[in-house]
Amino acid sequence: MRGLIDRQAITDVLVEYCYALDTMELERLLPLFATDCVVDYGPDERLRSSGADALVKSLERLWRWTRTSHHVSNIGIRFTGSGNAEVVSYVYAWHERVDGSTAIICGQYADTFVRNAAGWQIAARRMLMNACSDTFTVEINKLERRQPPPGWCAPDLDNSGDSTRK
Amino acid sequence: MRGLIDRQAITDVLVEYCYALDTMELERLLPLFATDCVVDYGPDERLRSSGADALVKSLERLWRWTRTSHHVSNIGIRFTGSGNAEVVSYVYAWHERVDGSTAIICGQYADTFVRNAAGWQIAARRMLMNACSDTFTVEINKLERRQPPPGWCAPDLDNSGDSTRK
Amino acid sequence: MRGLIDRQAITDVLVEYCYALDTMELERLLPLFATDCVVDYGPDERLRSSGADALVKSLERLWRWTRTSHHVSNIGIRFTGSGNAEVVSYVYAWHERVDGSTAIICGQYADTFVRNAAGWQIAARRMLMNACSDTFTVEINKLERRQPPPGWCAPDLDNSGDSTRK
Repeated sequence: MRGLIDRQAITDVLVEYCYALDTMELERLLPLFATDCVVDYGPDERLRSSGADALVKSLERLWRWTRTSHHVSNIGIRFTGSGNAEVVSYVYAWHERVDGSTAIICGQYADTFVRNAAGWQIAARRMLMNACSDTFTVEINKLERRQPPPGWCAPDLDNSGDSTRK
Repeated sequence: MRGLIDRQAITDVLVEYCYALDTMELERLLPLFATDCVVDYGPDERLRSSGADALVKSLERLWRWTRTSHHVSNIGIRFTGSGNAEVVSYVYAWHERVDGSTAIICGQYADTFVRNAAGWQIAARRMLMNACSDTFTVEINKLERRQPPPGWCAPDLDNSGDSTRK
Repeated sequence: MRGLIDRQAITDVLVEYCYALDTMELERLLPLFATDCVVDYGPDERLRSSGADALVKSLERLWRWTRTSHHVSNIGIRFTGSGNAEVVSYVYAWHERVDGSTAIICGQYADTFVRNAAGWQIAARRMLMNACSDTFTVEINKLERRQPPPGWCAPDLDNSGDSTRK
C-alpha cells in the first residue's frame, strides 16, 4: 500500500516535469528536484547542471523550440530504501523549430529519487537517447544496446517485395 | 487507498476512450461520458457537442480516417471533491487517410470527471493541441505556452556542423 | 488493494519487456513469459513461437534494427480469475535500420496473463497492428476496425484551404 502511494507520487513528478516544460512554466520545475540535484542530458557542459536553480535556468534553452510535447511512459520504479528509488521512464519528445521543421527523440530518463520533507524529488537525472529523427542535432547521452553475437545473421522478414529490405 | 482506486477508475475511462475510437466501436464511448457532458475539441461548431449522445454521434467523423491510434499518457489527476476531479492527460494520435497519407497530433485532454451512479465519467472535456504534423489540417484548440522573457537569446547547441540550426 | 498490487505487477512485466528489447538484454525476457507461452506477432511462421525459450530466441531478429524504442501505454486490465487477466496495451515502436531509415508501428499487445509461482507472466500474446509508417514492411496481425454504416458521408473539417483534404 505504502509502495503504491509512493509510486503515484513519483509518477506525478515525472508527469509534472513534462507539463511544465511543454508550457514553459519553468517555476513549476523547482519543487520537482532536490536542491542539490545533479542533472546530465549530454556531454556538452551546457547540458549538465548542479542544483535545482541552475537546472531550471538552463532549461530556458527549450524556448529555442516553438512547441514541444513530452510524452512519458514505461515508468519502472525500484525502491532502494524507504526514501530512495531508482526510476527509469521513457519519453517521446516532439519539438518544432521557428521554421516549422520538427525533431523527435525517443529517450529514457534514468533518475534517482529521494523522499525528503518536500516529498519525492529527483536527486539525479541522466537522460539517455534511444532514437531520434535525423533532424535532431543536439548530442544527448546514448543508450547502450547490446550487440549481436558474432556470426548472427538477420532473417528476411520483409513483405514488401523489395529484396534490399529486411 | 480510496484515492488509488479512484485514480485507476479514471485511468480506465481514458484508456477505454482511445480503444473505442481506434476500433470505432462508438457505443463503448457512451458510458464514459456524463449524460449532460460538454466537449470541445476546437472552435468549429462541429468540434463541440453537448450531451453524450450528441458527442458519440459527432465522433463518427473519425471514419474519414482509415486507421487511427490514440496513445494516452501523462495522466495527472487532482481531486477537487469526493466525487470530482480535474484530469489532464497527453495523447499522441496517429491518423491515416484513404490516400495513405498520415497526420499526427500531440495533444492534451483537459477533463472534468464526476463520480455518479455509473462510476467516474467525463463531465467536460477540452482538447488542446500541443503539436501536429503539417499534414494535420483540422483546427484544434491550441495549448498556451509561455513566451520567453524580452531579450532572451537562444544558446547554440547544434552538433551537426550546420550553422543555420540551433 | 490486492487488485492494485496485481495491476502494478502486470504493468511492470509490460515495461520490462520493452526495456529488454530496446537494450537487447534478451535473457531479461525469459522470466516475463510462462514456460509454455504462445506468442503470435503475425501470420509468418517465424513471427510465432511456442514456449519462452523459443520466443526469446526468435526475438534475436530485432538485431536487424540498429536501434528501437518501444513505448507502452493504454494498459487495460480485466481480471478473469484470481490468477488470470486479459490485458490490452498499446505500443508505439520506433525502429532504425543500418542505412539510417526508420519505421514506426502503432500497435497493441493483446495478452493473457497468469499468476504462478514466478509471479505474473504472459501466457499468450497476440500483437495487432493499428498503424504503421509506409517504411515498415513486416506483416503484423491487423487490428480490426469497424467500418462506417452504409451511406455514411465524411464531414469536411479541413482548415487548410485545400479542397482535396478532409
